[in-house]
Amino acid sequence: MRWDDLSSAQFRERVNDSTLAVWPIGILESHGPHLPLATDAIQAEWGAETLARAVGAVVLSPMRFGNAVATRPYPGSISLPFDTLRAFVRDTLSEVARNGVRRILVLSGHLGRDHMAAIRVAATDVAEANPDIALSVLSDWEIVYEIRDKPPADYRGVPIPPDDSHGGMLETSRVLAIAPDLVDMRRAPTHIPRVPSPEFRIMLGADRTYPQGVLGGDASKATAELGREVNRIVEARLRRIADGLLKAP
Amino acid sequence: MRWDDLSSAQFRERVNDSTLAVWPIGILESHGPHLPLATDAIQAEWGAETLARAVGAVVLSPMRFGNAVATRPYPGSISLPFDTLRAFVRDTLSEVARNGVRRILVLSGHLGRDHMAAIRVAATDVAEANPDIALSVLSDWEIVYEIRDKPPADYRGVPIPPDDSHGGMLETSRVLAIAPDLVDMRRAPTHIPRVPSPEFRIMLGADRTYPQGVLGGDASKATAELGREVNRIVEARLRRIADGLLKAP
Amino acid sequence: MRWDDLSSAQFRERVNDSTLAVWPIGILESHGPHLPLATDAIQAEWGAETLARAVGAVVLSPMRFGNAVATRPYPGSISLPFDTLRAFVRDTLSEVARNGVRRILVLSGHLGRDHMAAIRVAATDVAEANPDIALSVLSDWEIVYEIRDKPPADYRGVPIPPDDSHGGMLETSRVLAIAPDLVDMRRAPTHIPRVPSPEFRIMLGADRTYPQGVLGGDASKATAELGREVNRIVEARLRRIADGLLKAP
Amino acid sequence: MRWDDLSSAQFRERVNDSTLAVWPIGILESHGPHLPLATDAIQAEWGAETLARAVGAVVLSPMRFGNAVATRPYPGSISLPFDTLRAFVRDTLSEVARNGVRRILVLSGHLGRDHMAAIRVAATDVAEANPDIALSVLSDWEIVYEIRDKPPADYRGVPIPPDDSHGGMLETSRVLAIAPDLVDMRRAPTHIPRVPSPEFRIMLGADRTYPQGVLGGDASKATAELGREVNRIVEARLRRIADGLLKAP
Amino acid sequence: MRWDDLSSAQFRERVNDSTLAVWPIGILESHGPHLPLATDAIQAEWGAETLARAVGAVVLSPMRFGNAVATRPYPGSISLPFDTLRAFVRDTLSEVARNGVRRILVLSGHLGRDHMAAIRVAATDVAEANPDIALSVLSDWEIVYEIRDKPPADYRGVPIPPDDSHGGMLETSRVLAIAPDLVDMRRAPTHIPRVPSPEFRIMLGADRTYPQGVLGGDASKATAELGREVNRIVEARLRRIADGLLKAP
Amino acid sequence: MRWDDLSSAQFRERVNDSTLAVWPIGILESHGPHLPLATDAIQAEWGAETLARAVGAVVLSPMRFGNAVATRPYPGSISLPFDTLRAFVRDTLSEVARNGVRRILVLSGHLGRDHMAAIRVAATDVAEANPDIALSVLSDWEIVYEIRDKPPADYRGVPIPPDDSHGGMLETSRVLAIAPDLVDMRRAPTHIPRVPSPEFRIMLGADRTYPQGVLGGDASKATAELGREVNRIVEARLRRIADGLLKAP
Repeated sequence: MRWDDLSSAQFRERVNDSTLAVWPIGILESHGPHLPLATDAIQAEWGAETLARAVGAVVLSPMRFGNAVATRPYPGSISLPFDTLRAFVRDTLSEVARNGVRRILVLSGHLGRDHMAAIRVAATDVAEANPDIALSVLSDWEIVYEIRDKPPADYRGVPIPPDDSHGGMLETSRVLAIAPDLVDMRRAPTHIPRVPSPEFRIMLGADRTYPQGVLGGDASKATAELGREVNRIVEARLRRIADGLLKAP
Repeated sequence: MRWDDLSSAQFRERVNDSTLAVWPIGILESHGPHLPLATDAIQAEWGAETLARAVGAVVLSPMRFGNAVATRPYPGSISLPFDTLRAFVRDTLSEVARNGVRRILVLSGHLGRDHMAAIRVAATDVAEANPDIALSVLSDWEIVYEIRDKPPADYRGVPIPPDDSHGGMLETSRVLAIAPDLVDMRRAPTHIPRVPSPEFRIMLGADRTYPQGVLGGDASKATAELGREVNRIVEARLRRIADGLLKAP
Repeated sequence: MRWDDLSSAQFRERVNDSTLAVWPIGILESHGPHLPLATDAIQAEWGAETLARAVGAVVLSPMRFGNAVATRPYPGSISLPFDTLRAFVRDTLSEVARNGVRRILVLSGHLGRDHMAAIRVAATDVAEANPDIALSVLSDWEIVYEIRDKPPADYRGVPIPPDDSHGGMLETSRVLAIAPDLVDMRRAPTHIPRVPSPEFRIMLGADRTYPQGVLGGDASKATAELGREVNRIVEARLRRIADGLLKAP
Repeated sequence: MRWDDLSSAQFRERVNDSTLAVWPIGILESHGPHLPLATDAIQAEWGAETLARAVGAVVLSPMRFGNAVATRPYPGSISLPFDTLRAFVRDTLSEVARNGVRRILVLSGHLGRDHMAAIRVAATDVAEANPDIALSVLSDWEIVYEIRDKPPADYRGVPIPPDDSHGGMLETSRVLAIAPDLVDMRRAPTHIPRVPSPEFRIMLGADRTYPQGVLGGDASKATAELGREVNRIVEARLRRIADGLLKAP
Repeated sequence: MRWDDLSSAQFRERVNDSTLAVWPIGILESHGPHLPLATDAIQAEWGAETLARAVGAVVLSPMRFGNAVATRPYPGSISLPFDTLRAFVRDTLSEVARNGVRRILVLSGHLGRDHMAAIRVAATDVAEANPDIALSVLSDWEIVYEIRDKPPADYRGVPIPPDDSHGGMLETSRVLAIAPDLVDMRRAPTHIPRVPSPEFRIMLGADRTYPQGVLGGDASKATAELGREVNRIVEARLRRIADGLLKAP
Repeated sequence: MRWDDLSSAQFRERVNDSTLAVWPIGILESHGPHLPLATDAIQAEWGAETLARAVGAVVLSPMRFGNAVATRPYPGSISLPFDTLRAFVRDTLSEVARNGVRRILVLSGHLGRDHMAAIRVAATDVAEANPDIALSVLSDWEIVYEIRDKPPADYRGVPIPPDDSHGGMLETSRVLAIAPDLVDMRRAPTHIPRVPSPEFRIMLGADRTYPQGVLGGDASKATAELGREVNRIVEARLRRIADGLLKAP
């Protein structure tokens, strides 16, 4: 069920305080020479739609603009200021709440630190103004990096190198599983080493360190099979989170 | 060519100062019991994609959130504050310009007065900061209402009543031509009279005057054929505007 | 009756919820070498005072600062940012409402697109916060351009060329009728052709196209007689609008 | 010479970097049952015009809206928020500077603490952005209260009680000298005692302490003669300040 | 009693609507080559602590950042923008009020015009939102300059030259009395003449007029004895102000 | 070396582009019935001063106001809005940079998610505007929680339960080591169980879950000895971070 496709009459008939709304947020950001600029959005939208089918949620219109100061210099990247993203998220969630929705999951395909902060600060404002709402905010990449760092017992995929990161083997695999036509494996970079940053330092200009736009890992080893396995675990985890929201008082 | 689908490498190879970027903006807003909430977005995105195919433009990621204070009370409508929409448009267009694009067409499917003002004020800010840009902002409904009020010589459709408006015969016909699966003609209201507003008065609460969400016209008379005829004229007009942008110095 | 001239005691005695307040807003903006910078303000203030005498309204203190990005480069022009004008109008109208006034007419002598948008967005905010108010916003030039494009049946003046515009024959005539001492007809430009702009394009820097500051028309053909005739029709129309406000529930 | 009355051509011919611009700012605020709401504006505009005649300055369009939180509750008072007044003054002075004016005197008829702070903070911003400007900000009441507290050697008027204040003998006398038709001496309150406020306390709601709107003094003792004497000294002092601005490098 | 040192439990037990909270605000600003950058903070904190001991008040955490545009160019000076200082003070005082405190004294060691305006405008906002609060805002230097200009009957110190100012004899003496280790009398400048500013002129760049950072007076004549005498009078005056707050209804 | 204690002359002599400035930021926030409201500030200031002694840094004036929405309901807590904290940090760091400092460590004693986001977003703005700066932002509690979760090889303290948190054994031990007079061990709560939150949920109102203000752990088991051991490791880690900043190009 998509919010956008419902008529106002259908919305009134089908959406109420027990409905879960899922909102996928992405970004247009370089992910190397082999992945589309919308890579993060594609994964978030896959997650939202998969989850909506599984638990009967309504998917709110995807939003493909986000914040990414450090990767902004790459061609095609679009980064909104922190305040603009935050106002946009806050005002949209406020409208969702005004429409009577009481269970909301914001799913970001992009895991930039300031990007997530903008969304969470916005969500906190909405939660303060609507104390009866159950509202969760996460990036599917918080789950994916958990899989990388500490694979769950039922993980059946290949071992994942600890430095696999933005645009690397995992991300390329996931997009291969979801939207293979948008991946050009001929241009996938082989292993890009992860360059350690000084601890707690504010770093900008990722293009100076990573000219190819992959921030660590070997994209050329990506497979749709690995992508499906990772996505399976992401989906299961999203379902648990959605169940929590659906059972909230 | 979709901005979102390009990799950063492809973007660098294919997008330059002679490229035209088209950005469709919609809204989620009640359009009566028979049309989807995304009705305006659907028309704007059709226009952008049709135009891009015709003239080789790049389509920027569609944006389906807008401003509509008067129709906000209908279920499912989402209205961003003026300032949030404006900041969003200003910052996105600034990023488009930072990426080297010099010819931009913003195409809004929604023709709300404040909505268009927010977009135009934002565009003016971007034009001031980028004096070498050619930038046009319009709603396809500025064209459609011209067709209604003064049909061009080559118009072949049925006569259009002067009070046909938001959600009426014309709009329903256009969506029938573009996305027929999202129209439920069984629920299309028959003639809704246009209620005259006091001149120059600031009016809110459209739902008090138009409980069904159609603001004038007979949606039940809509046909895909009429929609195609109107869309043909819209497309021709958009091409002339795009030609002007492509020829700008 | 002028708001400014009343004592607080008189205000309490004479102003109440059936009073109409009229607020003239102008701008300081070049109108060619023959017309004063306050040309728009002069016309709006004439309209407000004429109307107040006719229907017994109170005139709020005139405001002669507005927004005009495109004509800002001419010497003597003062253009406030959109936000400053909007905040000013919003906060002033809020105070008018706080003082118990329930019928308000904002009459702008300047018809710039962003200028009017700033005023209307401000007025919408005030209308949302004060649902029992009847509030109209217009420029007298919305009426004047109607006269030019489609003269009413009782119009007795000379034919008006369709390209007559800012600082041209109509505007010069109106100021000749209101404040002849401020017009220097010896410097009135003869016919300035109207240069077509690309459709829907955001245009800045009017001084590059119109070095004399008249944006179309033949100011040298202006007469006080024509000005009086146009003003007569403007006044009649303003009275109808005021009647609507006075009769609002 | 009035900025408003000049054409753009005259402005270019007559206004340059040796011109002094004077900007009178007032407020609409209760001054008792006998004085008009525009009392402060009337005095500031008199000062600006008198000074302009004396030293050949240009008078910028008067502004009659200001900030007055404590006296806001009286009928007819209009108080802009601090930020709105400040933005308005900052943006207007910036435009004055953009037009090439380098000597500016802002003359406020109202001496509210926050009102003056808003103007001075705005002026500081403009001075920082235009280091070559000579810019003074004062209220004529800073001069008048000096006369009250320590009359200059050439003062020829009656003794002034130390508690004479807003709307009292001095202010009423000044308006009697400038605009006698707007004063209703039959309603002038006799002696209103000045109620001491706790030191350094933030006080609001002046109407609770002073129901008549005069904040101290005996308005019934006012005379046009006293007003003229005070105005004479104010004018002389303004001329000295203007001379300083005209001689600034 | 220090707010910071209390546990939450102690706060609940000891702080209530009869408690006076004192908040010392300073600035980091050049005070000549002999006084520490925190000179103003040191005096304000001494005043707050002395007063708290005398009347049993709670001292809120000192704040050592303020606004000082004109003295900003000296090395080590830190000046917050007006808006940032104001928001900080407003939000902190709002929180103090939210915690149930109803008597507040804000004591600034710095007496910059815009600095005090920012604090007072902030305090006015808080007073409007909390009508039952008694709230005073002052700088101890408002008292010290009164002593200089009109010594009270019980003043026993040496005569004070009328041009003694920022960083001069009085200020140096006060810091000698409070924190002698932080004063380097070997570097104390001898008499710095006070340079008259044009009346009412907005002045920036104090370092151009006063390269040493003392804005008038003879710091080399400072003594701890004079500092103690001035501080004694300041303390007595602060007690009277605090008594007023404690007795407020 | 304390910024506050230096004179402007000393600042010019001793602070330059190789100087490291450390800025401790805390908060006033309930930490249970046994710890002072300034608990976080105390730890950050200890860290800053210890580090400054070790590596010769200058300590900027401590700031004891922060953001903590969830723990705001406890008596004595003061929480600034996100925007106010961010503006404060941004403007202060900008001033530090304007004074020529090129190596900055912001050390927050409080680890609230939005609090850290506000500081980091502010620091990012300053880093963008000053590309030659090396700037790190961290909370000492990022280090402490690492010790809890994965004690380093040289850790000699007692085992730390995984649910020890805000106000628990570790934090109480650290304050016992730094400022024992401010801890009241008689009121230290025994074991408070950590209540699991729904994953990724936005949670407010910590006082409903944790009435005592300790968010997990057994404060009654705290010892100064444990505090010293933890502080030793924190100090060593801070020195490594400072070394990185001092060696930055």
